[in-house]
Amino acid sequence: MEEFEKIWINARIVLINENNEITVHENSFIAVKNKKIAKIDKMEKFYDLNANKIFDVENRLITASLIDCHTHLIYGGNRASEFEKRLNGISYEQIAKDGGGIASSIKSTRSESFESIYKNSAKRLEALIKDGVTTLEIKTGYGLDTKSEIKMLNIAKKLEENYPVHIEKTFLGAHAVPIEYKNKSDAYIDYICNEMLDEVNNLGLVTCVDAYCEHLAFSVEQTRRVFEKAKSLGLNVKLHAEQFSSMGATDLACEFKALSVDHLEYINELSIKKMSENNTVAVLLPGAYYFLRETKMPPIELFRKYKVPIAIATDLNPGTSALCSLQLMMNMSAVIFSLNVNEVFLSVTKNAAAALGLENCKGSLEIGFDADFCVWDITHPRDLVCSYLPNSLHYSVQNGEIVNV
Amino acid sequence: MEEFEKIWINARIVLINENNEITVHENSFIAVKNKKIAKIDKMEKFYDLNANKIFDVENRLITASLIDCHTHLIYGGNRASEFEKRLNGISYEQIAKDGGGIASSIKSTRSESFESIYKNSAKRLEALIKDGVTTLEIKTGYGLDTKSEIKMLNIAKKLEENYPVHIEKTFLGAHAVPIEYKNKSDAYIDYICNEMLDEVNNLGLVTCVDAYCEHLAFSVEQTRRVFEKAKSLGLNVKLHAEQFSSMGATDLACEFKALSVDHLEYINELSIKKMSENNTVAVLLPGAYYFLRETKMPPIELFRKYKVPIAIATDLNPGTSALCSLQLMMNMSAVIFSLNVNEVFLSVTKNAAAALGLENCKGSLEIGFDADFCVWDITHPRDLVCSYLPNSLHYSVQNGEIVNV
Repeated sequence: MEEFEKIWINARIVLINENNEITVHENSFIAVKNKKIAKIDKMEKFYDLNANKIFDVENRLITASLIDCHTHLIYGGNRASEFEKRLNGISYEQIAKDGGGIASSIKSTRSESFESIYKNSAKRLEALIKDGVTTLEIKTGYGLDTKSEIKMLNIAKKLEENYPVHIEKTFLGAHAVPIEYKNKSDAYIDYICNEMLDEVNNLGLVTCVDAYCEHLAFSVEQTRRVFEKAKSLGLNVKLHAEQFSSMGATDLACEFKALSVDHLEYINELSIKKMSENNTVAVLLPGAYYFLRETKMPPIELFRKYKVPIAIATDLNPGTSALCSLQLMMNMSAVIFSLNVNEVFLSVTKNAAAALGLENCKGSLEIGFDADFCVWDITHPRDLVCSYLPNSLHYSVQNGEIVNV
Repeated sequence: MEEFEKIWINARIVLINENNEITVHENSFIAVKNKKIAKIDKMEKFYDLNANKIFDVENRLITASLIDCHTHLIYGGNRASEFEKRLNGISYEQIAKDGGGIASSIKSTRSESFESIYKNSAKRLEALIKDGVTTLEIKTGYGLDTKSEIKMLNIAKKLEENYPVHIEKTFLGAHAVPIEYKNKSDAYIDYICNEMLDEVNNLGLVTCVDAYCEHLAFSVEQTRRVFEKAKSLGLNVKLHAEQFSSMGATDLACEFKALSVDHLEYINELSIKKMSENNTVAVLLPGAYYFLRETKMPPIELFRKYKVPIAIATDLNPGTSALCSLQLMMNMSAVIFSLNVNEVFLSVTKNAAAALGLENCKGSLEIGFDADFCVWDITHPRDLVCSYLPNSLHYSVQNGEIVNV
């Protein structure tokens, strides 16, 4: 008789086959041992097994839990007043002139206490957990000095200690040029490469380095310097690129074997081909597209043509995607970007795991993978894509433990 | 010493002044007696009062609770598969030819059991309640025969008995031409006017009659017959109109003193003027606009010019707005329709109450009004508009009772 710790029985289990197609397996069970998925089989094979705990999910759907692979969840303040000003007809330029935009989040994140930022960030994290997320990425990038960037990372660490989630922490020092380096962006890159990244890396919290390569942020050459430093420290890289213009930054990212390139509305075909050759994930962010009322769509057909894996994330941030629901992003990626159900499901599971370098342990229900899954009150993954019902989750399981938030 | 049943203290209370502007009152309390709002004042006036129960909301924000004034929440089946087909490139025409579209919801609603439809509808209702909704409208219109329309109304009645909400029930027999009346729409209108509406009205559940006046549904003349019958029974009327074309249906609605006209993307200035003269509410439905990828916006500036009250609702339905969150609609009406914070807040409170004929008892925190309010984990109504954080509600109160769902 095979022994397990826990078995979830009478489930309809969603797997991903070798062609990356979702398949629903009726009358099945999933067994967990040492926090890993140990066995998945039909209920008729259930009778030879033993487990300390058996959970009957009464024919509910079980999928891999959701992964939000691009968030700026931790920040001080909020920018609702700024958004309100825009609704009242004040121009973005005027708001920026008055100290709004990303500068305002940097100011708040630097000045607000650890406890206050922690509390508000925890509220946002709880919303994502209720959505079925058990793994997410959180970027730094509102501190922009060593002390404040480390404060953000320690908040992420504390969130991970206190909530049933795995958090990948990404260093995004090259998010914007802070006010004290105004018109001295090269000097700021020096500061990142010669000081900040070393100190941040010494904490051992960060696994990846991101940058914002865009005319209003950093150049390709500046990004290259950050990536060279990251690689010298043995860290992965990823990139915000081609959101508002085509700068060829994706080619640089591919040269450095980036895990993902994110946004990509303006990417060209040649760069997409390079992503494909490097197996770099395209992370699309429909929330930012919606929030900013963009009109240039990312080139979905070309990603399909070159078989570039597509992930979807909230881009949760106070200025351009203040939308705290990955399920909502699933609907938006279908409604706005016309991704199909199979693509959307992969985009928040298997491909999102790959965007975080976790494709060998998360994002799919495979033997030996982490026991992270969702039990849903729906009949098929299409229900998560074709509608938005925020209470669809019955409960989720992280590392083999039932999540209560 | 004044006596009350319950007092919520240490609140920041959002009121609406005589100019329809929202105002935030710091350090205040709200007292309830006989399920009505009995007193609102500053905390320094609190010490002369007595109450059986006192709730300290610890400086949280209290607003009137939210009102969803246009929903098709009760239906059999779902249309996710149909939406999936569209994502896979199958045309809407082909789907309709295969029995999809509204015909599919009518088929499911007729055949599915009371219990099954009740259970799925309750799940959707729970999502709205968690959003802060304590009053909503539910339309019939997926039965389209006396028996099935009455089944829908009895489901609405049972939902209202089992959940802490007030439900306005609207008869929408003239939603579509059912299959047994194909090419005989006048005969179907005869059936509504000579039989169905009388039988439905005898139940005493319905307060309002709605119709869908559009080329793909009913003509202005057919709608007139339904409205005449409704008025003869002493019922209010409202109308789905000008969603895909301008048919002048709004003028008809104003002639019958309609509570609201809903959708309105294609309304012209003259009709807007008539709405203004009649005090008819314009109910805008950003969810349907988003879901259908519409590009013609409702003429917001003209509604402002003629001071037509604007309400916003989910239009929750299986085919064209499968989005179960009024808070999300608040964000969409700002992002997509560029309504400002004040307009959005009124659109789901005071104006939504007016769209249901409830402006004298709901939608605003006034003495003598129903004690329906929300206690929020936010600092200002703008937070509900400028971002989407689905767990913003601390709890709501309906009829003076704290809601637990």
